[in-house]
Amino acid sequence: MGQIRKLIIVMAMVAEARPFIESAGLTKLDAPFGNCLPMQAYAGQLDGLAVRLVFNGTDPRFNVDNVATQPAALATYAAIERFKPDIVLNAGTAGAFKDAGLEIGEPVLATGSVSFHDRRIPIPGFDRYGKGGYPCLPAPNMVRALALKTGTISTGNSLDMCPEDLAAIRENRAVIKEMEAAAVAWVAWLMQTPFLAVKTVTDFIDNHESVPEQFDKNLALAVQNLGTCLKQMAAFMNNRDINRL
Amino acid sequence: MGQIRKLIIVMAMVAEARPFIESAGLTKLDAPFGNCLPMQAYAGQLDGLAVRLVFNGTDPRFNVDNVATQPAALATYAAIERFKPDIVLNAGTAGAFKDAGLEIGEPVLATGSVSFHDRRIPIPGFDRYGKGGYPCLPAPNMVRALALKTGTISTGNSLDMCPEDLAAIRENRAVIKEMEAAAVAWVAWLMQTPFLAVKTVTDFIDNHESVPEQFDKNLALAVQNLGTCLKQMAAFMNNRDINRL
Repeated sequence: MGQIRKLIIVMAMVAEARPFIESAGLTKLDAPFGNCLPMQAYAGQLDGLAVRLVFNGTDPRFNVDNVATQPAALATYAAIERFKPDIVLNAGTAGAFKDAGLEIGEPVLATGSVSFHDRRIPIPGFDRYGKGGYPCLPAPNMVRALALKTGTISTGNSLDMCPEDLAAIRENRAVIKEMEAAAVAWVAWLMQTPFLAVKTVTDFIDNHESVPEQFDKNLALAVQNLGTCLKQMAAFMNNRDINRL
Repeated sequence: MGQIRKLIIVMAMVAEARPFIESAGLTKLDAPFGNCLPMQAYAGQLDGLAVRLVFNGTDPRFNVDNVATQPAALATYAAIERFKPDIVLNAGTAGAFKDAGLEIGEPVLATGSVSFHDRRIPIPGFDRYGKGGYPCLPAPNMVRALALKTGTISTGNSLDMCPEDLAAIRENRAVIKEMEAAAVAWVAWLMQTPFLAVKTVTDFIDNHESVPEQFDKNLALAVQNLGTCLKQMAAFMNNRDINRL
Protein backbone atom coordinates (compact mmCIF):
# COMPACT_ATOMS: atom_id res chain seq x y z
CA MET A 1 0.00 0.00 0.00
CA GLY A 2 2.55 2.60 1.09
CA GLN A 3 2.31 6.37 1.18
CA ILE A 4 -0.65 8.41 -0.09
CA ARG A 5 0.65 10.50 -3.00
CA LYS A 6 -2.42 10.70 -5.24
CA LEU A 7 -6.02 11.27 -4.17
CA ILE A 8 -9.15 11.13 -6.31
CA ILE A 9 -12.22 12.91 -5.00
CA VAL A 10 -15.43 11.76 -6.74
CA MET A 11 -18.39 14.12 -6.51
CA ALA A 12 -21.80 14.21 -8.18
CA MET A 13 -22.46 17.96 -8.41
CA VAL A 14 -20.12 20.79 -9.39
CA ALA A 15 -22.03 23.14 -7.05
CA GLU A 16 -20.89 20.96 -4.12
CA ALA A 17 -17.24 21.49 -5.07
CA ARG A 18 -16.89 25.18 -5.96
CA PRO A 19 -15.36 26.37 -2.64
CA PHE A 20 -12.85 23.50 -2.69
CA ILE A 21 -11.89 24.03 -6.35
CA GLU A 22 -11.23 27.72 -5.66
CA SER A 23 -9.42 27.39 -2.35
CA ALA A 24 -7.29 24.48 -3.62
CA GLY A 25 -6.55 26.28 -6.89
CA LEU A 26 -7.52 23.28 -9.06
CA THR A 27 -7.64 23.66 -12.85
CA LYS A 28 -10.09 22.01 -15.23
CA LEU A 29 -8.81 19.26 -17.51
CA ASP A 30 -9.86 19.18 -21.18
CA ALA A 31 -12.02 16.11 -22.05
CA PRO A 32 -10.31 13.92 -19.40
CA PHE A 33 -12.30 10.79 -20.34
CA GLY A 34 -12.61 11.13 -24.11
CA ASN A 35 -15.31 12.77 -26.16
CA CYS A 36 -18.28 10.60 -25.17
CA LEU A 37 -18.29 10.41 -21.36
CA PRO A 38 -19.84 13.47 -19.66
CA MET A 39 -17.55 13.18 -16.63
CA GLN A 40 -15.32 16.18 -15.85
CA ALA A 41 -12.12 16.49 -13.85
CA TYR A 42 -10.01 19.12 -12.11
CA ALA A 43 -6.38 18.69 -11.14
CA GLY A 44 -3.90 20.27 -8.75
CA GLN A 45 -1.33 19.76 -6.02
CA LEU A 46 -1.90 20.33 -2.32
CA ASP A 47 1.46 20.43 -0.53
CA GLY A 48 2.79 17.71 -2.80
CA LEU A 49 -0.37 15.56 -2.78
CA ALA A 50 -1.71 15.13 -6.31
CA VAL A 51 -5.47 15.75 -6.25
CA ARG A 52 -7.91 14.85 -9.02
CA LEU A 53 -11.48 16.01 -8.53
CA VAL A 54 -13.92 14.05 -10.70
CA PHE A 55 -17.56 14.94 -11.46
CA ASN A 56 -20.33 12.89 -13.00
CA GLY A 57 -20.96 15.69 -15.51
CA THR A 58 -24.35 16.92 -16.71
CA ASP A 59 -27.25 15.64 -18.80
CA PRO A 60 -27.39 18.01 -21.79
CA ARG A 61 -31.13 17.44 -22.24
CA PHE A 62 -32.11 18.85 -18.85
CA ASN A 63 -28.94 20.70 -17.86
CA VAL A 64 -28.68 18.94 -14.49
CA ASP A 65 -25.86 17.00 -12.85
CA ASN A 66 -25.75 13.24 -13.46
CA VAL A 67 -26.61 12.28 -9.89
CA ALA A 68 -27.40 8.72 -8.67
CA THR A 69 -25.46 5.49 -8.78
CA GLN A 70 -24.98 4.63 -12.48
CA PRO A 71 -22.95 7.77 -13.28
CA ALA A 72 -21.09 7.43 -9.96
CA ALA A 73 -19.98 3.89 -10.88
CA LEU A 74 -18.88 4.93 -14.35
CA ALA A 75 -17.08 8.09 -13.14
CA THR A 76 -15.19 6.11 -10.51
CA TYR A 77 -14.11 3.44 -12.99
CA ALA A 78 -12.98 5.97 -15.61
CA ALA A 79 -11.14 7.99 -12.96
CA ILE A 80 -9.30 5.03 -11.42
CA GLU A 81 -8.31 3.78 -14.88
CA ARG A 82 -7.06 7.21 -15.91
CA PHE A 83 -5.45 8.51 -12.72
CA LYS A 84 -4.36 5.35 -10.84
CA PRO A 85 -4.88 6.89 -7.39
CA ASP A 86 -3.70 5.60 -4.03
CA ILE A 87 -7.13 6.31 -2.54
CA VAL A 88 -10.66 7.28 -3.65
CA LEU A 89 -12.71 9.72 -1.59
CA ASN A 90 -16.40 10.16 -2.37
CA ALA A 91 -17.52 13.60 -1.15
CA GLY A 92 -20.83 15.40 -1.26
CA THR A 93 -23.94 16.40 0.62
CA ALA A 94 -26.52 14.09 2.16
CA GLY A 95 -29.56 13.67 4.33
CA ALA A 96 -29.21 12.58 7.95
CA PHE A 97 -31.36 11.24 10.73
CA LYS A 98 -31.85 14.05 13.24
CA ASP A 99 -32.23 11.41 15.95
CA ALA A 100 -28.60 10.36 15.32
CA GLY A 101 -27.41 13.65 16.83
CA LEU A 102 -26.05 15.13 13.61
CA GLU A 103 -26.34 18.82 12.72
CA ILE A 104 -27.07 20.64 9.45
CA GLY A 105 -23.80 21.52 7.71
CA GLU A 106 -21.77 18.95 9.63
CA PRO A 107 -19.33 16.64 7.78
CA VAL A 108 -19.64 12.91 8.55
CA LEU A 109 -16.97 10.37 7.61
CA ALA A 110 -18.29 6.96 6.52
CA THR A 111 -17.35 4.04 8.73
CA GLY A 112 -17.78 0.30 8.39
CA SER A 113 -19.25 -0.53 5.01
CA VAL A 114 -21.50 1.28 2.55
CA SER A 115 -24.73 -0.40 1.43
CA PHE A 116 -27.60 0.17 -0.95
CA HIS A 117 -31.13 0.57 0.37
CA ASP A 118 -32.96 0.24 -2.94
CA ARG A 119 -31.68 -3.07 -4.32
CA ARG A 120 -34.28 -5.45 -2.86
CA ILE A 121 -33.66 -8.92 -4.32
CA PRO A 122 -35.35 -11.49 -2.04
CA ILE A 123 -33.47 -14.58 -3.30
CA PRO A 124 -30.78 -16.14 -1.04
CA GLY A 125 -27.34 -14.75 -1.93
CA PHE A 126 -28.81 -12.06 -4.18
CA ASP A 127 -30.33 -10.42 -1.09
CA ARG A 128 -26.90 -9.83 0.43
CA TYR A 129 -25.38 -8.91 -2.93
CA GLY A 130 -28.17 -6.35 -3.35
CA LYS A 131 -27.28 -4.62 -0.10
CA GLY A 132 -23.65 -4.36 -1.19
CA GLY A 133 -21.66 -3.74 1.96
CA TYR A 134 -18.44 -2.39 0.45
CA PRO A 135 -15.68 -1.51 2.91
CA CYS A 136 -14.57 1.95 4.01
CA LEU A 137 -10.88 2.30 4.88
CA PRO A 138 -10.53 2.72 8.65
CA ALA A 139 -9.08 6.17 9.43
CA PRO A 140 -8.97 6.43 13.24
CA ASN A 141 -6.04 8.86 13.33
CA MET A 142 -7.68 11.25 10.87
CA VAL A 143 -10.97 11.06 12.76
CA ARG A 144 -9.17 12.01 15.96
CA ALA A 145 -6.94 14.71 14.45
CA LEU A 146 -9.77 16.45 12.58
CA ALA A 147 -12.44 15.74 15.22
CA LEU A 148 -14.67 14.21 12.54
CA LYS A 149 -18.06 12.74 13.28
CA THR A 150 -18.48 9.25 11.85
CA GLY A 151 -21.45 7.17 10.79
CA THR A 152 -22.76 4.55 8.41
CA ILE A 153 -23.86 5.65 4.94
CA SER A 154 -26.68 4.12 2.91
CA THR A 155 -27.17 4.77 -0.81
CA GLY A 156 -30.19 4.83 -3.07
CA ASN A 157 -31.21 6.31 -6.40
CA SER A 158 -34.00 8.53 -5.08
CA LEU A 159 -33.88 11.86 -3.28
CA ASP A 160 -37.08 10.99 -1.46
CA MET A 161 -37.57 7.96 0.75
CA CYS A 162 -40.38 5.43 0.45
CA PRO A 163 -41.23 3.13 3.41
CA GLU A 164 -39.18 0.28 1.87
CA ASP A 165 -36.14 2.59 1.60
CA LEU A 166 -36.51 3.67 5.23
CA ALA A 167 -36.75 0.07 6.42
CA ALA A 168 -33.60 -0.85 4.48
CA ILE A 169 -31.70 2.22 5.73
CA ARG A 170 -32.58 1.24 9.30
CA GLU A 171 -31.52 -2.34 8.57
CA ASN A 172 -28.21 -1.00 7.21
CA ARG A 173 -27.91 0.84 10.58
CA ALA A 174 -27.19 3.99 8.59
CA VAL A 175 -27.42 7.58 9.84
CA ILE A 176 -26.65 9.19 6.45
CA LYS A 177 -28.75 8.74 3.29
CA GLU A 178 -27.37 9.78 -0.06
CA MET A 179 -27.28 8.78 -3.73
CA GLU A 180 -23.78 7.71 -4.80
CA ALA A 181 -21.42 6.32 -2.11
CA ALA A 182 -22.18 2.58 -2.47
CA ALA A 183 -21.61 2.72 -6.24
CA VAL A 184 -18.28 4.52 -5.80
CA ALA A 185 -17.31 2.08 -3.03
CA TRP A 186 -18.25 -0.93 -5.20
CA VAL A 187 -16.00 0.18 -8.05
CA ALA A 188 -13.14 1.12 -5.70
CA TRP A 189 -13.47 -2.35 -4.14
CA LEU A 190 -13.37 -4.01 -7.59
CA MET A 191 -10.33 -1.95 -8.54
CA GLN A 192 -8.58 -2.75 -5.23
CA THR A 193 -8.32 0.92 -4.34
CA PRO A 194 -8.94 2.04 -0.72
CA PHE A 195 -12.17 3.99 -0.29
CA LEU A 196 -13.37 6.77 1.98
CA ALA A 197 -16.54 8.88 1.93
CA VAL A 198 -17.37 12.17 3.59
CA LYS A 199 -20.77 13.86 3.37
CA THR A 200 -22.04 17.10 4.88
CA VAL A 201 -25.64 17.22 6.04
CA THR A 202 -28.11 19.33 4.01
CA ASP A 203 -31.36 17.96 5.39
CA PHE A 204 -32.99 15.80 8.01
CA ILE A 205 -34.83 12.86 6.53
CA ASP A 206 -36.86 12.25 9.70
CA ASN A 207 -38.34 15.74 9.51
CA HIS A 208 -41.67 17.14 8.37
CA GLU A 209 -40.06 19.76 6.11
CA SER A 210 -39.66 18.64 2.50
CA VAL A 211 -36.20 17.44 1.46
CA PRO A 212 -35.91 19.69 -1.66
CA GLU A 213 -36.73 22.79 0.48
CA GLN A 214 -34.21 21.91 3.18
CA PHE A 215 -31.63 21.08 0.49
CA ASP A 216 -32.00 24.53 -1.12
CA LYS A 217 -31.83 26.33 2.22
CA ASN A 218 -28.80 24.50 3.59
CA LEU A 219 -26.71 23.75 0.51
CA ALA A 220 -24.45 26.82 0.78
CA LEU A 221 -23.45 26.08 4.39
CA ALA A 222 -22.97 22.35 3.71
CA VAL A 223 -20.81 23.06 0.66
CA GLN A 224 -18.67 25.63 2.47
CA ASN A 225 -18.02 23.21 5.33
CA LEU A 226 -17.34 20.38 2.87
CA GLY A 227 -14.66 22.50 1.17
CA THR A 228 -12.94 23.20 4.48
CA CYS A 229 -13.13 19.55 5.50
CA LEU A 230 -11.74 18.32 2.16
CA LYS A 231 -8.72 20.61 2.49
CA GLN A 232 -8.09 19.36 6.02
CA MET A 233 -8.47 15.74 4.97
CA ALA A 234 -6.15 16.15 1.97
CA ALA A 235 -3.51 17.81 4.17
CA PHE A 236 -3.80 14.99 6.72
CA MET A 237 -3.56 12.24 4.09
CA ASN A 238 -0.61 13.75 2.25
CA ASN A 239 2.30 11.32 2.25
CA ARG A 240 0.85 9.34 5.17
CA ASP A 241 1.07 5.56 5.29
CA ILE A 242 -2.33 4.36 4.11
CA ASN A 243 -2.39 1.71 6.84
CA ARG A 244 -1.99 4.37 9.51
CA LEU A 245 -4.71 6.73 8.37
CA MET B 1 -24.11 4.51 -39.70
CA GLY B 2 -23.86 1.85 -42.41
CA GLN B 3 -24.03 -1.92 -42.22
CA ILE B 4 -24.24 -3.96 -39.02
CA ARG B 5 -21.04 -6.02 -38.82
CA LYS B 6 -20.47 -6.23 -35.06
CA LEU B 7 -23.08 -6.84 -32.36
CA ILE B 8 -22.62 -6.70 -28.59
CA ILE B 9 -25.19 -8.53 -26.47
CA VAL B 10 -25.13 -7.38 -22.83
CA MET B 11 -26.69 -9.77 -20.31
CA ALA B 12 -26.78 -9.88 -16.51
CA MET B 13 -26.84 -13.62 -15.86
CA VAL B 14 -24.88 -16.44 -17.49
CA ALA B 15 -27.84 -18.81 -16.89
CA GLU B 16 -29.91 -16.65 -19.23
CA ALA B 17 -27.38 -17.14 -22.04
CA ARG B 18 -26.41 -20.83 -21.97
CA PRO B 19 -28.64 -22.01 -24.85
CA PHE B 20 -27.47 -19.14 -27.04
CA ILE B 21 -23.77 -19.63 -26.22
CA GLU B 22 -24.05 -23.32 -27.15
CA SER B 23 -26.15 -23.00 -30.28
CA ALA B 24 -24.07 -20.07 -31.57
CA GLY B 25 -20.79 -21.83 -30.68
CA LEU B 26 -19.34 -18.84 -28.83
CA THR B 27 -16.04 -19.19 -26.99
CA LYS B 28 -15.05 -17.57 -23.70
CA LEU B 29 -12.46 -14.79 -23.77
CA ASP B 30 -9.70 -14.69 -21.16
CA ALA B 31 -9.93 -11.63 -18.83
CA PRO B 32 -11.52 -9.47 -21.55
CA PHE B 33 -11.63 -6.34 -19.35
CA GLY B 34 -8.42 -6.66 -17.34
CA ASN B 35 -7.84 -8.31 -13.99
CA CYS B 36 -10.09 -6.16 -11.80
CA LEU B 37 -13.47 -6.00 -13.54
CA PRO B 38 -15.66 -9.08 -12.96
CA MET B 39 -17.31 -8.81 -16.40
CA GLN B 40 -16.95 -11.77 -18.75
CA ALA B 41 -17.25 -12.06 -22.52
CA TYR B 42 -17.81 -14.70 -25.19
CA ALA B 43 -17.01 -14.23 -28.87
CA GLY B 44 -17.97 -15.80 -32.19
CA GLN B 45 -19.22 -15.28 -35.72
CA LEU B 46 -22.76 -15.89 -36.92
CA ASP B 47 -22.81 -15.97 -40.74
CA GLY B 48 -20.21 -13.22 -40.85
CA LEU B 49 -21.69 -11.10 -38.04
CA ALA B 50 -19.17 -10.65 -35.22
CA VAL B 51 -20.95 -11.31 -31.92
CA ARG B 52 -19.62 -10.42 -28.47
CA LEU B 53 -21.69 -11.60 -25.52
CA VAL B 54 -20.90 -9.65 -22.34
CA PHE B 55 -21.90 -10.55 -18.77
CA ASN B 56 -21.81 -8.53 -15.59
CA GLY B 57 -19.85 -11.30 -13.88
CA THR B 58 -20.35 -12.56 -10.33
CA ASP B 59 -19.84 -11.29 -6.79
CA PRO B 60 -17.23 -13.66 -5.32
CA ARG B 61 -18.56 -13.10 -1.79
CA PHE B 62 -22.01 -14.54 -2.48
CA ASN B 63 -21.42 -16.38 -5.75
CA VAL B 64 -24.31 -14.63 -7.52
CA ASP B 65 -24.48 -12.68 -10.78
CA ASN B 66 -23.90 -8.92 -10.58
CA VAL B 67 -27.47 -7.96 -11.44
CA ALA B 68 -28.95 -4.43 -11.30
CA THR B 69 -27.97 -1.18 -12.95
CA GLN B 70 -24.47 -0.32 -11.67
CA PRO B 71 -22.80 -3.43 -13.13
CA ALA B 72 -24.89 -3.09 -16.29
CA ALA B 73 -23.60 0.46 -16.84
CA LEU B 74 -20.00 -0.55 -16.23
CA ALA B 75 -20.22 -3.71 -18.40
CA THR B 76 -21.70 -1.72 -21.27
CA TYR B 77 -19.02 0.96 -21.07
CA ALA B 78 -16.16 -1.54 -20.88
CA ALA B 79 -17.65 -3.58 -23.75
CA ILE B 80 -18.20 -0.60 -26.08
CA GLU B 81 -14.67 0.68 -25.35
CA ARG B 82 -13.15 -2.73 -26.01
CA PHE B 83 -15.25 -4.06 -28.91
CA LYS B 84 -16.43 -0.89 -30.77
CA PRO B 85 -19.72 -2.46 -31.87
CA ASP B 86 -22.18 -1.16 -34.46
CA ILE B 87 -25.06 -1.89 -32.11
CA VAL B 88 -25.71 -2.88 -28.47
CA LEU B 89 -28.46 -5.35 -27.60
CA ASN B 90 -29.47 -5.81 -23.97
CA ALA B 91 -31.05 -9.26 -23.56
CA GLY B 92 -32.47 -11.08 -20.58
CA THR B 93 -35.54 -12.12 -18.69
CA ALA B 94 -38.13 -9.84 -17.11
CA GLY B 95 -41.45 -9.42 -15.40
CA ALA B 96 -44.51 -8.36 -17.37
CA PHE B 97 -47.99 -7.06 -16.76
CA LYS B 98 -50.43 -9.86 -17.50
CA ASP B 99 -53.01 -7.24 -18.38
CA ALA B 100 -50.78 -6.15 -21.31
CA GLY B 101 -51.55 -9.42 -23.09
CA LEU B 102 -48.07 -10.90 -22.81
CA GLU B 103 -47.38 -14.60 -22.17
CA ILE B 104 -44.81 -16.42 -20.03
CA GLY B 105 -41.74 -17.25 -22.13
CA GLU B 106 -42.54 -14.69 -24.81
CA PRO B 107 -39.77 -12.34 -26.09
CA VAL B 108 -40.63 -8.64 -26.15
CA LEU B 109 -38.59 -6.06 -28.07
CA ALA B 110 -38.26 -2.67 -26.38
CA THR B 111 -39.79 0.25 -28.22
CA GLY B 112 -39.71 4.00 -27.68
CA SER B 113 -37.40 4.84 -24.80
CA VAL B 114 -36.24 3.01 -21.68
CA SER B 115 -36.74 4.68 -18.30
CA PHE B 116 -35.94 4.09 -14.65
CA HIS B 117 -38.76 3.66 -12.13
CA ASP B 118 -36.65 4.00 -8.98
CA ARG B 119 -34.83 7.31 -9.45
CA ARG B 120 -37.34 9.68 -7.82
CA ILE B 121 -35.79 13.16 -7.67
CA PRO B 122 -38.60 15.70 -7.23
CA ILE B 123 -36.66 18.80 -8.32
CA PRO B 124 -37.45 20.39 -11.73
CA GLY B 125 -35.06 19.02 -14.36
CA PHE B 126 -33.72 16.33 -12.05
CA ASP B 127 -37.15 14.66 -12.13
CA ARG B 128 -36.92 14.09 -15.87
CA TYR B 129 -33.23 13.21 -15.68
CA GLY B 130 -34.12 10.62 -13.02
CA LYS B 131 -36.57 8.87 -15.32
CA GLY B 132 -33.93 8.66 -18.02
CA GLY B 133 -35.82 8.04 -21.25
CA TYR B 134 -32.99 6.71 -23.41
CA PRO B 135 -33.88 5.83 -27.00
CA CYS B 136 -34.33 2.38 -28.52
CA LEU B 137 -33.41 2.06 -32.18
CA PRO B 138 -36.59 1.62 -34.24
CA ALA B 139 -36.58 -1.82 -35.91
CA PRO B 140 -39.91 -2.09 -37.75
CA ASN B 141 -38.64 -4.49 -40.41
CA MET B 142 -37.19 -6.88 -37.83
CA VAL B 143 -40.39 -6.73 -35.77
CA ARG B 144 -42.40 -7.66 -38.87
CA ALA B 145 -40.03 -10.33 -40.16
CA LEU B 146 -39.65 -12.09 -36.79
CA ALA B 147 -43.23 -11.42 -35.63
CA LEU B 148 -41.87 -9.90 -32.41
CA LYS B 149 -44.10 -8.45 -29.75
CA THR B 150 -43.05 -4.96 -28.69
CA GLY B 151 -43.49 -2.92 -25.54
CA THR B 152 -42.00 -0.29 -23.27
CA ILE B 153 -39.42 -1.38 -20.70
CA SER B 154 -38.93 0.13 -17.25
CA THR B 155 -35.85 -0.51 -15.11
CA GLY B 156 -35.23 -0.57 -11.37
CA ASN B 157 -32.73 -2.06 -8.95
CA SER B 158 -35.18 -4.31 -7.09
CA LEU B 159 -36.70 -7.65 -8.05
CA ASP B 160 -39.79 -6.80 -6.05
CA MET B 161 -42.00 -3.79 -6.62
CA CYS B 162 -43.03 -1.27 -3.98
CA PRO B 163 -46.07 1.01 -4.59
CA GLU B 164 -43.77 3.88 -5.68
CA ASP B 165 -42.13 1.60 -8.26
CA LEU B 166 -45.52 0.50 -9.60
CA ALA B 167 -46.71 4.10 -9.93
CA ALA B 168 -43.54 5.05 -11.83
CA ILE B 169 -43.74 1.98 -14.10
CA ARG B 170 -47.32 2.93 -14.97
CA GLU B 171 -46.21 6.54 -15.56
CA ASN B 172 -43.48 5.22 -17.87
CA ARG B 173 -46.31 3.35 -19.70
CA ALA B 174 -44.19 0.24 -19.43
CA VAL B 175 -45.38 -3.35 -19.81
CA ILE B 176 -42.03 -4.94 -18.94
CA LYS B 177 -40.18 -4.49 -15.61
CA GLU B 178 -36.57 -5.53 -15.29
CA MET B 179 -33.27 -4.52 -13.70
CA GLU B 180 -30.71 -3.40 -16.30
CA ALA B 181 -32.02 -2.02 -19.61
CA ALA B 182 -32.09 1.72 -18.76
CA ALA B 183 -28.48 1.61 -17.53
CA VAL B 184 -27.32 -0.18 -20.69
CA ALA B 185 -29.34 2.26 -22.83
CA TRP B 186 -27.87 5.27 -20.98
CA VAL B 187 -24.30 4.19 -21.66
CA ALA B 188 -25.06 3.26 -25.30
CA TRP B 189 -26.62 6.73 -25.71
CA LEU B 190 -23.53 8.40 -24.19
CA MET B 191 -21.27 6.37 -26.48
CA GLN B 192 -23.40 7.17 -29.55
CA THR B 193 -24.06 3.49 -30.20
CA PRO B 194 -27.54 2.35 -31.33
CA PHE B 195 -29.42 0.38 -28.67
CA LEU B 196 -31.97 -2.43 -28.66
CA ALA B 197 -33.37 -4.54 -25.83
CA VAL B 198 -35.20 -7.86 -25.87
CA LYS B 199 -36.56 -9.57 -22.75
CA THR B 200 -38.46 -12.82 -22.34
CA VAL B 201 -41.15 -12.97 -19.70
CA THR B 202 -40.47 -15.09 -16.60
CA ASP B 203 -43.19 -13.75 -14.34
CA PHE B 204 -46.29 -11.62 -14.08
CA ILE B 205 -45.86 -8.68 -11.75
CA ASP B 206 -49.61 -8.11 -11.41
CA ASN B 207 -50.09 -11.63 -10.07
CA HIS B 208 -50.63 -13.08 -6.61
CA GLU B 209 -47.85 -15.65 -6.99
CA SER B 210 -44.47 -14.50 -5.66
CA VAL B 211 -41.97 -13.25 -8.23
CA PRO B 212 -39.05 -15.49 -7.06
CA GLU B 213 -41.30 -18.60 -7.33
CA GLN B 214 -42.53 -17.70 -10.82
CA PHE B 215 -38.99 -16.86 -11.86
CA ASP B 216 -37.70 -20.30 -10.81
CA LYS B 217 -40.57 -22.12 -12.50
CA ASN B 218 -40.40 -20.27 -15.82
CA LEU B 219 -36.70 -19.49 -16.24
CA ALA B 220 -35.88 -22.56 -18.39
CA LEU B 221 -38.62 -21.81 -20.94
CA ALA B 222 -37.81 -18.09 -21.03
CA VAL B 223 -34.11 -18.76 -21.53
CA GLN B 224 -34.72 -21.33 -24.28
CA ASN B 225 -36.96 -18.89 -26.16
CA LEU B 226 -34.50 -16.07 -25.62
CA GLY B 227 -31.72 -18.14 -27.21
CA THR B 228 -33.87 -18.85 -30.28
CA CYS B 229 -34.89 -15.21 -30.55
CA LEU B 230 -31.29 -13.96 -30.25
CA LYS B 231 -30.17 -16.22 -33.10
CA GLN B 232 -33.01 -14.98 -35.29
CA MET B 233 -32.29 -11.35 -34.44
CA ALA B 234 -28.56 -11.75 -35.12
CA ALA B 235 -29.28 -13.39 -38.48
CA PHE B 236 -31.70 -10.60 -39.39
CA MET B 237 -29.26 -7.81 -38.37
CA ASN B 238 -26.27 -9.31 -40.16
CA ASN B 239 -24.94 -6.86 -42.74
CA ARG B 240 -28.22 -4.91 -42.77
CA ASP B 241 -28.24 -1.12 -43.03
CA ILE B 242 -28.77 0.05 -39.44
CA ASN B 243 -31.24 2.69 -40.62
CA ARG B 244 -33.40 0.03 -42.21
CA LEU B 245 -33.64 -2.34 -39.29
